[in-house]
Amino acid sequence: MATAADQNVEFVRTGYGKNLVKVLVIRRQGSHHYIIELMANVEITLKSRKDYLTGDNSDIIPTDTIKNTVHALAKIKGVKTIEQFSLDICNHFLTSFNHVLRAKVYMEEAPWRRLEKNGAEHAHAFIYSPEAFRFCDVEQTLNGSPVVHSGMRDMKVLKTTQSGFEGFLRDRFTTLQETKDRCFCTSVYAKWRYNNVQDVDFDAAWKTVKETIFERFAGPYDRGEYSPSVQKTLYETQVLVLERIPEVDEIEIVMPNQHYFIIDMTKMGIANQNEVLLPLDSPSGNITGTLRRKQRARL
Amino acid sequence: MATAADQNVEFVRTGYGKNLVKVLVIRRQGSHHYIIELMANVEITLKSRKDYLTGDNSDIIPTDTIKNTVHALAKIKGVKTIEQFSLDICNHFLTSFNHVLRAKVYMEEAPWRRLEKNGAEHAHAFIYSPEAFRFCDVEQTLNGSPVVHSGMRDMKVLKTTQSGFEGFLRDRFTTLQETKDRCFCTSVYAKWRYNNVQDVDFDAAWKTVKETIFERFAGPYDRGEYSPSVQKTLYETQVLVLERIPEVDEIEIVMPNQHYFIIDMTKMGIANQNEVLLPLDSPSGNITGTLRRKQRARL
Amino acid sequence: MATAADQNVEFVRTGYGKNLVKVLVIRRQGSHHYIIELMANVEITLKSRKDYLTGDNSDIIPTDTIKNTVHALAKIKGVKTIEQFSLDICNHFLTSFNHVLRAKVYMEEAPWRRLEKNGAEHAHAFIYSPEAFRFCDVEQTLNGSPVVHSGMRDMKVLKTTQSGFEGFLRDRFTTLQETKDRCFCTSVYAKWRYNNVQDVDFDAAWKTVKETIFERFAGPYDRGEYSPSVQKTLYETQVLVLERIPEVDEIEIVMPNQHYFIIDMTKMGIANQNEVLLPLDSPSGNITGTLRRKQRARL
Amino acid sequence: MATAADQNVEFVRTGYGKNLVKVLVIRRQGSHHYIIELMANVEITLKSRKDYLTGDNSDIIPTDTIKNTVHALAKIKGVKTIEQFSLDICNHFLTSFNHVLRAKVYMEEAPWRRLEKNGAEHAHAFIYSPEAFRFCDVEQTLNGSPVVHSGMRDMKVLKTTQSGFEGFLRDRFTTLQETKDRCFCTSVYAKWRYNNVQDVDFDAAWKTVKETIFERFAGPYDRGEYSPSVQKTLYETQVLVLERIPEVDEIEIVMPNQHYFIIDMTKMGIANQNEVLLPLDSPSGNITGTLRRKQRARL
Repeated sequence: MATAADQNVEFVRTGYGKNLVKVLVIRRQGSHHYIIELMANVEITLKSRKDYLTGDNSDIIPTDTIKNTVHALAKIKGVKTIEQFSLDICNHFLTSFNHVLRAKVYMEEAPWRRLEKNGAEHAHAFIYSPEAFRFCDVEQTLNGSPVVHSGMRDMKVLKTTQSGFEGFLRDRFTTLQETKDRCFCTSVYAKWRYNNVQDVDFDAAWKTVKETIFERFAGPYDRGEYSPSVQKTLYETQVLVLERIPEVDEIEIVMPNQHYFIIDMTKMGIANQNEVLLPLDSPSGNITGTLRRKQRARL
Repeated sequence: MATAADQNVEFVRTGYGKNLVKVLVIRRQGSHHYIIELMANVEITLKSRKDYLTGDNSDIIPTDTIKNTVHALAKIKGVKTIEQFSLDICNHFLTSFNHVLRAKVYMEEAPWRRLEKNGAEHAHAFIYSPEAFRFCDVEQTLNGSPVVHSGMRDMKVLKTTQSGFEGFLRDRFTTLQETKDRCFCTSVYAKWRYNNVQDVDFDAAWKTVKETIFERFAGPYDRGEYSPSVQKTLYETQVLVLERIPEVDEIEIVMPNQHYFIIDMTKMGIANQNEVLLPLDSPSGNITGTLRRKQRARL
Repeated sequence: MATAADQNVEFVRTGYGKNLVKVLVIRRQGSHHYIIELMANVEITLKSRKDYLTGDNSDIIPTDTIKNTVHALAKIKGVKTIEQFSLDICNHFLTSFNHVLRAKVYMEEAPWRRLEKNGAEHAHAFIYSPEAFRFCDVEQTLNGSPVVHSGMRDMKVLKTTQSGFEGFLRDRFTTLQETKDRCFCTSVYAKWRYNNVQDVDFDAAWKTVKETIFERFAGPYDRGEYSPSVQKTLYETQVLVLERIPEVDEIEIVMPNQHYFIIDMTKMGIANQNEVLLPLDSPSGNITGTLRRKQRARL
Repeated sequence: MATAADQNVEFVRTGYGKNLVKVLVIRRQGSHHYIIELMANVEITLKSRKDYLTGDNSDIIPTDTIKNTVHALAKIKGVKTIEQFSLDICNHFLTSFNHVLRAKVYMEEAPWRRLEKNGAEHAHAFIYSPEAFRFCDVEQTLNGSPVVHSGMRDMKVLKTTQSGFEGFLRDRFTTLQETKDRCFCTSVYAKWRYNNVQDVDFDAAWKTVKETIFERFAGPYDRGEYSPSVQKTLYETQVLVLERIPEVDEIEIVMPNQHYFIIDMTKMGIANQNEVLLPLDSPSGNITGTLRRKQRARL
């Protein structure tokens, strides 16, 4: 089948690979053990589409081989950072074969944290600490440079004051009250693009973004800092990240507004002065923005 | 803050809105009740970015108002299909305000199915039947035509035979055996774009895509049809959809290969002839492709 | 360690086993294939506790062997129903070893449904249809009779009328309005105990419970039946199940009340006559009851 | 209906209430804010069952009122610990009504942790830190003393060495190799019962259990401690908890064995010396035990 039809259709995009490839890598320095656990989605695109068109599988590197390759490279190359390991995987597929047009790896690191007590580190015991998830996205095409994004997801923070929302537009469907003082909770997603991949300290960059988000969200530890809108806090965070990390050229941040509403207890004869709040599962506000360094050529 | 820095940065994209806006709409025809339950993520982009830059909220239509608007339009306009309702929402924001540049709605329909017994339909009782989820994605910019995608996700199907995978490339990391007869399970994701929005029967199109996926996956009911690879089955499904629905111009399909491995019982002295299989949670193969109708101008 | 302490403590209960043991069993009758996919949690209790007390593992049947045993028995015994297969597993551990005091199996069946079209059944293709999940719980002690529970979970149904809630108690914290006509949605959980295991048609019993739940929830198809409370509907369902299935002696039902609230649009100048409702994620009501056949001895 | 049938059936148990009642309580001491966010499932049992039997709702305290009551009590009583607040809720229902036989509260605390930097605490900003979830279960019957359980769930820990499993029983289905050195990962569940509720420091007890689990799991920080089986580690943890907290009389612990398998790379010509491991989603071992202080009367 699909012969006459072929005349009238064309591919926009093809790709295949293995998702949810998992691995724990242990590195031992004497009795001190280091671990990195990761999950990878690997996708490659081949030059020909004869597998789709005619069922000719002769160019297909099986997804099972892709999984094996991730396992083997983890042993052969080691895993220093998820970014470096994703670069190694892309490089493998583009250099080991001459019919792979594109390789793309999405990788997440499991948030293991070494057990510590009074400053002492445990030699080999860890706790799963999902305060934030670190991921990266690496894509490379044949004869092209790799494009590396790093990111964090699901870092949930809350402040009980120093947030407000006033002066907004009102129409016939607006029922929201203005407020100078509200509880603000968000689950931060951030993803940034590097302008090179050679001399980047990916670990340091990730920590800097995380610290910068805390800094703009929470403000000074003794008194906080007022946020007039999620938009402004998001933007200021981005500006500061681009200032602090020259290797980052672009950053997207998504800050949902996970609402906590003051429970109205007047019908029960109780005056609730912003003390007891209702966490809402849904809906949530969603504020997003992508900011980049101005291109020199445009100046 | 963020003043000197502003000289060196620029926005790539901004947007905000409300996610997870839920609503159940009941339409009554005498004692016969019709329902549609939906969940919407609505995002709009404004002309100015003064909210991000200076904390000036005067152009912001609050996300709470966006939620109210979805509720109000559900009552005022009714909900015939999620596609039509998403178009109504986009249209509202672009025509009620002159500072909204772009409106985008992602909407999902809850898979309620009317209770039936021996062909009789219940007047007002329904069961949640998540065999597949229907969604749409509608985006419109100021002075532009709306772009409508429809889709389905998480439709999981399995066949116990008439699937194989042979003749693939082997390298040093390949350990997979060739097979002419395997169990194949996939959870289908499909998303297609319409070339117009006026005279489309969105319900009929969705059903046609669903039927076409069944047809190519399962083949004739008495004997099935052999699939030499996921790639070929995916492509043939796409060709057939484009043949059958002239209003569809492009379709993306993702077919993960959710593996079932034959359990090797030889060490236990048992001969397991492809009867007892192990469902794997991870990893899974992932095959994808986007096919479009050739543009006339290119012929 | 743990020596002096041993004098002062005693075990209430011990047990170990393997959770999430998965298997797909294919039975072929010519070109017609039958499947059953299941997930089992198996737990056994040993006579001695020397593994806990002194680290002596010599009595431990490894959890890996327990997994292998499920796989092997699936091949050797076949799987007619999850109840029968769970009985086989319990029986295996109690009869193959003389130091196993107790065996307990929780098993779930994956809700695969054969593809059908106009009454024709497909020979070997299936769709995952999670309208309800079937499970069982089988427990047997050494020299005892097995106790078999069957159940269903997560069967979500909704009716748009013929439900009310009036005449309830009011106190200072009560703000709820009485209603004669509300939308009622629940996700049914039911679990029942058989009074014998020899001659039960487990498949037929499960279908009867399911049909009975539909019958009491939905009422006659043309007009429904009024429910004055979840409590009453729950109880009437139980009574009918015990009437219809003599092999069932006891049944627990849990019917959460998953609220849909009428959205008040008066502030927006819109009269919403019970047409547009808000599905609540949380909280939900939760109504439960366990009913049993009166014991003869008590009459 | 359900009239003749009533003669032959009897209730084993009834109950109803509200699940997933959520609340955030903010306590302000000057500019320093304290928060506790919780989720409660509340269930009560009434003296009469006329609501089930005849649809007479006059004794029913609506589940909506139950939700309101939790909100109101949070304001009136405050929330010092989830245990104390659960006791307050039980007490309210048993003392405010004379037809409530039993009240039961399951409560979970959201794992918010105050932002800290170099020892400085932020006045009002917090991060969601789900390293472990704290819950409690309080039940009280009319004229009875409350029974308080506290617990933790989903605390996932991993050690890369100092775990083994040898000397176990082998049968025809055993294929597992013995090992003196394996990676061990578990997600701890623990639940303990207090022998009084008056003078317990619930916060301190929870921390002591957590520390004790770390101590027995991880051993000395420089070298760890060898575990010959999950059973032994589980038991030793329980003994130590009962030694350290006199107010605890009984403790249940569940320690799944979440397997990491060494990936065999010999077919790829690679020697993998326990460096690259595969995390398994399923199945998992499951080890459990409940230990109690010996009753004095039995000595």
